Amino acid sequence: MTLESDVGDAETENTEKGDALIVFTPSGKRGRFPVGTPVLSAARSLGVDVDSVCGGRGICGRCQVTVSEGSFAKHGIESRRDHLSPQGRNEQRYDEKRGLKPDRRLSCSALLQNDVVIDVPSDSQVHKQVVRKRAEARDIEIDPSIRLCYVEVEEPDMHNPSSDLERVYRALSEQWQIDVSRADPHVVIGLQKVLRQGDWQMTVVVHQARDGEPSEIISIWPGFKDVAYGLAVDVGSTTIAAHLCDLHTGEVMASAGLMNPQIRFGEDLMSRVSYVMMNPGGEQEMTQVIRESLSTLAGEVAGEAGIDVDDILSAVLVGNPVMHHLFLGIDPTELGGAPFALATGLAIDIPARDLDIKINRGARVYILPCIAGHVGADAAGVALSESPHLNDELTLIVDVGTNAELILGNKNELLAASSPTGPAFEGAQISSGQRAAPGAIERVRIDPETLEPRFRVIGSELWSDDPGFEDAVADIGVTGICGSGIIEALAELFLAGVITHDGVVDGSLAARSPRMIADGRTFSYVLHDGSPLVTVTQNDVRAIQLAKAALYAGAKLLMDRMRITTVDRITLAGAFGSHIDVKYAMVLGLIPDCDIEKVQSAGNAAGTGARIALLNRAARREIEEVVRKIEKVETAVEPAFQEHFVDAMAFPHKRDPYVKLSKVVTLPERKSGDDSPDTPDDGSRRRRRRRNAAG
Amino acid sequence: MTLESDVGDAETENTEKGDALIVFTPSGKRGRFPVGTPVLSAARSLGVDVDSVCGGRGICGRCQVTVSEGSFAKHGIESRRDHLSPQGRNEQRYDEKRGLKPDRRLSCSALLQNDVVIDVPSDSQVHKQVVRKRAEARDIEIDPSIRLCYVEVEEPDMHNPSSDLERVYRALSEQWQIDVSRADPHVVIGLQKVLRQGDWQMTVVVHQARDGEPSEIISIWPGFKDVAYGLAVDVGSTTIAAHLCDLHTGEVMASAGLMNPQIRFGEDLMSRVSYVMMNPGGEQEMTQVIRESLSTLAGEVAGEAGIDVDDILSAVLVGNPVMHHLFLGIDPTELGGAPFALATGLAIDIPARDLDIKINRGARVYILPCIAGHVGADAAGVALSESPHLNDELTLIVDVGTNAELILGNKNELLAASSPTGPAFEGAQISSGQRAAPGAIERVRIDPETLEPRFRVIGSELWSDDPGFEDAVADIGVTGICGSGIIEALAELFLAGVITHDGVVDGSLAARSPRMIADGRTFSYVLHDGSPLVTVTQNDVRAIQLAKAALYAGAKLLMDRMRITTVDRITLAGAFGSHIDVKYAMVLGLIPDCDIEKVQSAGNAAGTGARIALLNRAARREIEEVVRKIEKVETAVEPAFQEHFVDAMAFPHKRDPYVKLSKVVTLPERKSGDDSPDTPDDGSRRRRRRRNAAG
Repeated sequence: MTLESDVGDAETENTEKGDALIVFTPSGKRGRFPVGTPVLSAARSLGVDVDSVCGGRGICGRCQVTVSEGSFAKHGIESRRDHLSPQGRNEQRYDEKRGLKPDRRLSCSALLQNDVVIDVPSDSQVHKQVVRKRAEARDIEIDPSIRLCYVEVEEPDMHNPSSDLERVYRALSEQWQIDVSRADPHVVIGLQKVLRQGDWQMTVVVHQARDGEPSEIISIWPGFKDVAYGLAVDVGSTTIAAHLCDLHTGEVMASAGLMNPQIRFGEDLMSRVSYVMMNPGGEQEMTQVIRESLSTLAGEVAGEAGIDVDDILSAVLVGNPVMHHLFLGIDPTELGGAPFALATGLAIDIPARDLDIKINRGARVYILPCIAGHVGADAAGVALSESPHLNDELTLIVDVGTNAELILGNKNELLAASSPTGPAFEGAQISSGQRAAPGAIERVRIDPETLEPRFRVIGSELWSDDPGFEDAVADIGVTGICGSGIIEALAELFLAGVITHDGVVDGSLAARSPRMIADGRTFSYVLHDGSPLVTVTQNDVRAIQLAKAALYAGAKLLMDRMRITTVDRITLAGAFGSHIDVKYAMVLGLIPDCDIEKVQSAGNAAGTGARIALLNRAARREIEEVVRKIEKVETAVEPAFQEHFVDAMAFPHKRDPYVKLSKVVTLPERKSGDDSPDTPDDGSRRRRRRRNAAG
Repeated sequence: MTLESDVGDAETENTEKGDALIVFTPSGKRGRFPVGTPVLSAARSLGVDVDSVCGGRGICGRCQVTVSEGSFAKHGIESRRDHLSPQGRNEQRYDEKRGLKPDRRLSCSALLQNDVVIDVPSDSQVHKQVVRKRAEARDIEIDPSIRLCYVEVEEPDMHNPSSDLERVYRALSEQWQIDVSRADPHVVIGLQKVLRQGDWQMTVVVHQARDGEPSEIISIWPGFKDVAYGLAVDVGSTTIAAHLCDLHTGEVMASAGLMNPQIRFGEDLMSRVSYVMMNPGGEQEMTQVIRESLSTLAGEVAGEAGIDVDDILSAVLVGNPVMHHLFLGIDPTELGGAPFALATGLAIDIPARDLDIKINRGARVYILPCIAGHVGADAAGVALSESPHLNDELTLIVDVGTNAELILGNKNELLAASSPTGPAFEGAQISSGQRAAPGAIERVRIDPETLEPRFRVIGSELWSDDPGFEDAVADIGVTGICGSGIIEALAELFLAGVITHDGVVDGSLAARSPRMIADGRTFSYVLHDGSPLVTVTQNDVRAIQLAKAALYAGAKLLMDRMRITTVDRITLAGAFGSHIDVKYAMVLGLIPDCDIEKVQSAGNAAGTGARIALLNRAARREIEEVVRKIEKVETAVEPAFQEHFVDAMAFPHKRDPYVKLSKVVTLPERKSGDDSPDTPDDGSRRRRRRRNAAG
């Protein structure tokens, strides 16, 4: 084989050599091969990325290509000539069984006859790209840690007493050029039966955590198999969300969420840590229930997608440090007080069975590294999804949960911190607050003249002043106000002058509106005069002030440390970030000033990070390196944090020039559900489930 | 530091440089170091092998050295000068607590003051040699797969939020120059408690399967700990024997044996395989009982040695292929018929917990490779113990159990085969046969004139014609004849002319002796006229003829294959090999002709091989390579085997010149127990237990 730099020249040598020229698009790789060479062999020899599970036996159909004769015609080659061998028995059989489009050929079966240009469509490439919806989000190259390999294994022979396993290793080496020297115990135990059931043909699942590490057989099936799935899981304090992904296409096949069953041990993280402190060994109960939930979720998504849980061969988990520790069975007590020492913050690669997760016995679970005692693997997932380390722009990433995790930086430097916002943004500590669930007020507008409100609740698309609203919410009711709702309510009340810059609910307005009611020495605003009564109290304003001051002070602290006064981009991650309107967030001063066009919601970025690490094993090493490089800033020991915090209590006097008040009150309606917390931001074939996370 | 080639020259530079010369014996390594350098640091810097568990903190006492002033005096140095600093606080404390001999110093605490010669006694070397009793047996260099490392771990700090595990890794790297990046899940789970219990001082058990493979923390203890044990186990069809070894000294602390509980599923291997064939899933029961037995044994030896089973951190197993498979939970059905395919024959490194062995949770179990479907990990253990691959001599190793495993060769070439001797050599298929147990006849002499016998039974040192014999065996009785007894009986009967070359019991002698009795058309010889009657029947002779012909034919087949007619050495391994008298074996033609001085019993060589692999991890790779290179010869498909078999049925006509009949009948008495099956051939501080294996 010789590589040719010019097709025209090469053409003249064709008949002399008995070789034919083959050019692959889109790679442009080309070479001469003897007539009769399978196209797939030529592709492999040239390093052209063509997929195959069956190893060139015409079974899997992954290696399909098309002939682009046209591109050759330009160089004077007669386009009617047969460039490839006619369909053979394998291809016909595949066509009958599974269907082959008229212009497609199986590259393993089509033999080179004459000079030809072959196009490798993207679905036939191993390392396909999954393109994400958001323009600024990185694409995902599919290269999971597992690989399916169909092998034909030599039968045992009295004259050659090698073991079955050794012959499987040899088959992998000879037929796939993969050197394997390890196999899971259950694979060894089941091997002889599977080999004989499949008549010495089997599909092997090879796991390689990273380049250079030993490859290992983690599962086997008799005969041919070409489907493999993975789970990306975000273990939140409130919700566990799981996405089932096809490891071949990268598609999200099904998503589901469950309430974290640990809630019965304590509503928030600290109360769960306290539970363990009060009940030594209590972490084991919490470990058990969370693992059971994940198994339940795995069963749910598998059922929804119509696959067997046994076909789930890989999983990636993210979660905050307490969830991370509890999932692993580690007592989280040390995370409950200074110095907040993690038992381990390193990435973990562990068999699913060691975590009692009911998926394939050999499946491997990867858990992203934690950044610090308050900034967990969920934040690492966000960092992987948003990839500030790949960009020039200085990006501030804000992930608001019970506390806020902050990442600031670009490819030169990264800082991270956790701000003690408390759970106010999740609707806790708010008089009429509730979790984001049907019936919760999530959108609020207040007329600055009349001080009359209108609102929308989760579960209905109608505003409260739309005709038919009462009927629409008859079943769900108006039950309270969720995190995004309280932000809008406060911002609208501030813009209408009901709340002052200092956060005082102005009781003097009671003269103008019956919605202002006295509440001891302070005043409240009645948002919904029903049962229950939904009000915004002076205490609610204080709670949000404390939370937003903590968030802002954390961001400022990181900016100080980086010696910058503005950021180029702000990304709001997580459920809260998906549901608040960024403009209201700026009105209240939750986040630093920034070009509002550059403030975006990233949806469940932690879950997306898990999905990236599931589909691309190189991303695992990447995020491990990023986490090692991130400088952690501990807000609790920084005097500057307290100063920023005090300064940030008030609502902004000077508005950022980009935030036009007129814009704020004529906001385009956000379509809810686009970035629902349990759906990654770019999944296709998605099937959304419940919506029960904070927001 | 500069290396000096001559002590005299070096001396002159001493005071000028402010350095002192240190010479280590027995290595001869030498160098100059600044005055005040700890001797241990100098040793490490020069690559002198000095042990330490505490990392130079004066706790473990492993680094003791002596000052050899005399050797310097020859070079003119005044011997009264102080060569090392006086005993400091650490040394005094160690001396008070654990005692320090007058001439000993802790090399970590003694500081270099003047030129000195330091002797490192063998007990202070890491890589000590265990010298085995048999002159021809290889010594064992102690270098186990685990290592104890005492570390002082940095405390967590708000300003440096690394996890506890990362700080442990750093401590190992800084204090031990060991790069570790893995820890067992249970280590991670228990880490925080252990660190705090030990006030940030802990002892870490680092496991490294082989050079170049990642090191892993498999266990941890708060504070300082310096004992670690390992188990060497031979899983036999009849008996499981375990030896508890001190991984620091190599000593055998305790040994114990148990009947293999699988016997209730079938007496011999094939009947256990049949059990699984008849009862699908039956292998799981057998796996469970054998694993439970091993846990029981571990508890027994630990109790005997007065240690905690949790201090057993490593185990090595050998066993025949069926035991190997059943222990691993693999259905052995394929081993029950041609082509006798092993599921896996590769060496296995697996956590003890995955095999349900109740020793330390993180302990690793290594299982030697199998050679072929009939030649198992026990044969690999024999090969490792006897090491024919290291010698020039052509050695034939014979391990007789239910079948005989044969290894032939030297450092250039190795062959292995299994000969289908059946269980006759174990006393089965013999009319009065029984296992080697108290009451079994094990030594036999027959007067060629009178044809009167005398014998000894297991459990008594007296011959049957010694005064007091009746009393001595009153409790145990004379219950039958064991494998070694039947060999002697047949050989003596043959030498006395009672049995012909063709193996016929000569009935015409009935006229001369009442011990010859008719038994249908054939005759028997009455060895013991008691209850039960112990006789040697014509069928017994046939059974032994078949077994010995198979053994001999197997050996001959290997010799043919190697194109040799004699061997330089014959080693008899295993219980049978330990108890038969090799001269009788030659009389009957069990083994090929050989200089009788070169025919030796190796005791439980399989168990010794397990112990070598336990104490020296390099031996694991060595035996894996040897097993890969051994050529396996399948007797069942070799026509030559049948020919040799038929030829070997008769008893030898031509005696080997080295076997003098006169010698045979005046044999020195063998001391029984020297190579008892459950004791390795070179254990010190041994405590022998039951004797219940075949012999």
